Amino acid sequence: MTAKTPKYGRLLDDFEVGAVYAHPWEVTVDAGTVALFQASFLDATPTYASARYAWDLGLRDRPVPPLLLLNLGLSFSVHDVSEQAIAHLAYIDVRFPEAAYAGDTLVATSRVLGVKPASSGDKGVVHVRTSLAKLDGAAVCVFERKALVRAGRLHGRPERAHVEKRASIPPEPSRLPPELRETVRVPSRVGGFAGFACDFAPGEVIFHDIGKTVGESEHMQMTALCRNSHPLHFDEVYCAGGASFAKTRVVYGGLVFAWVAALASRDTTGNVLWDMGFDQGAHPAGVVAGDTLFAASKVLAVTPHDPGTSRVTFRLVGTKNRKPADLATAGADLFSTELGKGEGKVPEKVFEIDRTVLMKSRP
Amino acid sequence: MTAKTPKYGRLLDDFEVGAVYAHPWEVTVDAGTVALFQASFLDATPTYASARYAWDLGLRDRPVPPLLLLNLGLSFSVHDVSEQAIAHLAYIDVRFPEAAYAGDTLVATSRVLGVKPASSGDKGVVHVRTSLAKLDGAAVCVFERKALVRAGRLHGRPERAHVEKRASIPPEPSRLPPELRETVRVPSRVGGFAGFACDFAPGEVIFHDIGKTVGESEHMQMTALCRNSHPLHFDEVYCAGGASFAKTRVVYGGLVFAWVAALASRDTTGNVLWDMGFDQGAHPAGVVAGDTLFAASKVLAVTPHDPGTSRVTFRLVGTKNRKPADLATAGADLFSTELGKGEGKVPEKVFEIDRTVLMKSRP
Amino acid sequence: MTAKTPKYGRLLDDFEVGAVYAHPWEVTVDAGTVALFQASFLDATPTYASARYAWDLGLRDRPVPPLLLLNLGLSFSVHDVSEQAIAHLAYIDVRFPEAAYAGDTLVATSRVLGVKPASSGDKGVVHVRTSLAKLDGAAVCVFERKALVRAGRLHGRPERAHVEKRASIPPEPSRLPPELRETVRVPSRVGGFAGFACDFAPGEVIFHDIGKTVGESEHMQMTALCRNSHPLHFDEVYCAGGASFAKTRVVYGGLVFAWVAALASRDTTGNVLWDMGFDQGAHPAGVVAGDTLFAASKVLAVTPHDPGTSRVTFRLVGTKNRKPADLATAGADLFSTELGKGEGKVPEKVFEIDRTVLMKSRP
Repeated sequence: MTAKTPKYGRLLDDFEVGAVYAHPWEVTVDAGTVALFQASFLDATPTYASARYAWDLGLRDRPVPPLLLLNLGLSFSVHDVSEQAIAHLAYIDVRFPEAAYAGDTLVATSRVLGVKPASSGDKGVVHVRTSLAKLDGAAVCVFERKALVRAGRLHGRPERAHVEKRASIPPEPSRLPPELRETVRVPSRVGGFAGFACDFAPGEVIFHDIGKTVGESEHMQMTALCRNSHPLHFDEVYCAGGASFAKTRVVYGGLVFAWVAALASRDTTGNVLWDMGFDQGAHPAGVVAGDTLFAASKVLAVTPHDPGTSRVTFRLVGTKNRKPADLATAGADLFSTELGKGEGKVPEKVFEIDRTVLMKSRP
Repeated sequence: MTAKTPKYGRLLDDFEVGAVYAHPWEVTVDAGTVALFQASFLDATPTYASARYAWDLGLRDRPVPPLLLLNLGLSFSVHDVSEQAIAHLAYIDVRFPEAAYAGDTLVATSRVLGVKPASSGDKGVVHVRTSLAKLDGAAVCVFERKALVRAGRLHGRPERAHVEKRASIPPEPSRLPPELRETVRVPSRVGGFAGFACDFAPGEVIFHDIGKTVGESEHMQMTALCRNSHPLHFDEVYCAGGASFAKTRVVYGGLVFAWVAALASRDTTGNVLWDMGFDQGAHPAGVVAGDTLFAASKVLAVTPHDPGTSRVTFRLVGTKNRKPADLATAGADLFSTELGKGEGKVPEKVFEIDRTVLMKSRP
Repeated sequence: MTAKTPKYGRLLDDFEVGAVYAHPWEVTVDAGTVALFQASFLDATPTYASARYAWDLGLRDRPVPPLLLLNLGLSFSVHDVSEQAIAHLAYIDVRFPEAAYAGDTLVATSRVLGVKPASSGDKGVVHVRTSLAKLDGAAVCVFERKALVRAGRLHGRPERAHVEKRASIPPEPSRLPPELRETVRVPSRVGGFAGFACDFAPGEVIFHDIGKTVGESEHMQMTALCRNSHPLHFDEVYCAGGASFAKTRVVYGGLVFAWVAALASRDTTGNVLWDMGFDQGAHPAGVVAGDTLFAASKVLAVTPHDPGTSRVTFRLVGTKNRKPADLATAGADLFSTELGKGEGKVPEKVFEIDRTVLMKSRP
């Protein structure tokens, strides 16, 4: 019997700096994709929820939520980049240069920016830049990320796989879609959520009161919806066999990100017009089904953008099973980067990132 | 460190009779929203399942299911009305005056009709009338409800919140959409489910044979899809800490309502053209994930409407973990209002309501 | 009190050879239906994922995935055919003669081909041919199946039920939609998944490396989405009471089929243009929530179809909780039909079927 067991992803020695992987997924996003995402992430940002609000902004329809785009781009890349990875280490410079709409067909490519073996010799860090784009080439989400990968070469990758190229990915994508690059047309809606740029002061901390318990089926559904093929998230036999640090399925980090952002949304993004970028993001600890996620935000900067809008930057953090306010009361340093800490690590912390949004300046 | 913890909803003294809250959610309903709802609620009503059937009726498309509309309206109002509520007490006079379609953007407003402190002084009953409407103002679901709320004033509500007005909500909405207000064009479909108005006799009881076990993820997804922000339904830390009477997440009552209605649907609404209203509804007990719901209906009235259709009113009840037929055999009085009972309460009963439907009179 | 408990499905003596049941469900499939399906089944077949790919093939839009069509057809028929069935025994000659698209309204009819009492006298096998069609009559999925049903007649079926006819169901539907019946226009996409017809050799075995753990909510949602009304899949009280061989809810077999096919997809259907049929399929064992499914394929035949495409036939099998590769190493005969085996049955085997696909011959 001739038998084979195809495997995907790459080990450290399979990566070559400068290579570009054209990921095989080609997926038409539709209204159902968007609704399913909204059914897990109770997000208050009006641009992504209301077609009327989006029209007022000058967009042709309600755009696909940015965290769904990031999750699609990241998940499409798993097949070539991280299906063998041990851990996702960092989100860097995430941008949304163009709106995507239901009906658009999306593809992604990743370029290897760096490969750095660890001194231990058994693993290393891969640094890639991924671009999720429409078929006409317009990038809708561009980001860098780092992943921890075992040393060696992967056996079993099919030979006639997806095309690899040396083509360039544009290095400096816009942080705003064309419709918002000149003066922003601020939607005239009266009412809506509280929280305008004038209400946020640098240094201020906001504890988001309500948590969200992660459902077992819902996290697997979101993972499949985004086409994330890492078995850590949906194959219990793989996980129980020792491949998971948690000995069970671990929630895909991009979903933890989206839940934490959603938990902060009624307090911070109820008047946001566009997500201008995420940076310096990491997952200091893993999350499993049944964990309850919480969020806190610290205002880092508020900068006028044009007459009606401002750029507001938050440090957004997520914790599990304990409220950030309680952790802070107990002395936890929530807003410093976990990775840089010698002492004082916060074991409940599961997510941290800088988030910059374009916000209405005032009601 | 300046820190704040925004809170939403209201305590008893925050409500003022006559105030109107314009809820901040503005959401475009799409085909995905509808499909997700149908993926949890196996409903047989043809108008909401088939575009052809809806066209035959004179509607321009398959309308959004009425129980999804009710759940959207109720959920939108949680942010201002009941996020701090202890319990939902009653559904009163629910109507669907106009069809909503995928693509419509919906908003909701609630008017405070009454505030009644309990004699104990620590809580009271708030009575509101909520209207879910399209952006052109056409109401697609109007209902009253009562909730039990703690006394006092809520600290932490953001100041620049959603607009409050004194505008009136139309008091007497239609029970039928414009397309059905004159003579009803009865769809000509031959076949379909059994059960026409001529088959139902006042006094008759129908035990619906099949139950539905509530999934943990699915109830949380439906809750988020509808934008219900009460942590009782999805925040296990909140619930385990004593805020939930069940010490765990409790299924949002509007979903229990929808499941019970769906369980009755093959036996009672397979030839229903429109839901003309619900009234006198309550949740005598709570439901948690893993409970199995059952339904029973009693025919209250059958009244000719026009040459081809009749109005049929059922008393619809839901139970958990025991079949209504078994409870009835054991002597339970299923169809009387639980609240009014001195003795003879049925602890398994989780839902009761009057439901009036417009039904084909005969095949 | 007049009371009744309507029941659906049929017992053995209720079936008459030649009868045709027009199933009552009439459902408009939409983008949400498709997205929900894709959120549970991580399938790589490009025709069903990408509108661009489908356009290149000459189709007018991304077609509804064939396993969703099969599940809709099978589920629609449960109400009349198998709601009282003990077990699903066989899938025979499944074909997809025409593409269905989001927006199409679908109905199904089943013709009784055979009724065969078992020698024990207490049960028997029913053999039906089901056709799922658009309202213009175009069949989009046609298949035969066999189910094991108890002897006797069902009491409680409503009298005025769905129409029964003697009309014929076309006996020999095409295996390809009209757009692909002449020379196939092979999409020009460069890249995508590995695995072209030239890469598969008859006799070769492919062990698909990754498994999928079945979520409790997700399998119930898919069951309801397809309108499958058998309580075995979602009514824990029914199951715990002894009606389920597993004493708990059992995953609807059509979903096990879809999961196993999806698990094989990156290795076998990444360049498939159309599913030409399934045959000789069975479920040797049941699956419950929490089980992890795995898949393996054996290449049975590779036949040139036209200059650019080939027909490839796989024997596709599914196992639970143990990898097919491990079972094969331990001596299991995975690819022979379980039913025919005297000794050597593989208790972990949950699914087996022949699958024929139209595939790009080479990159």
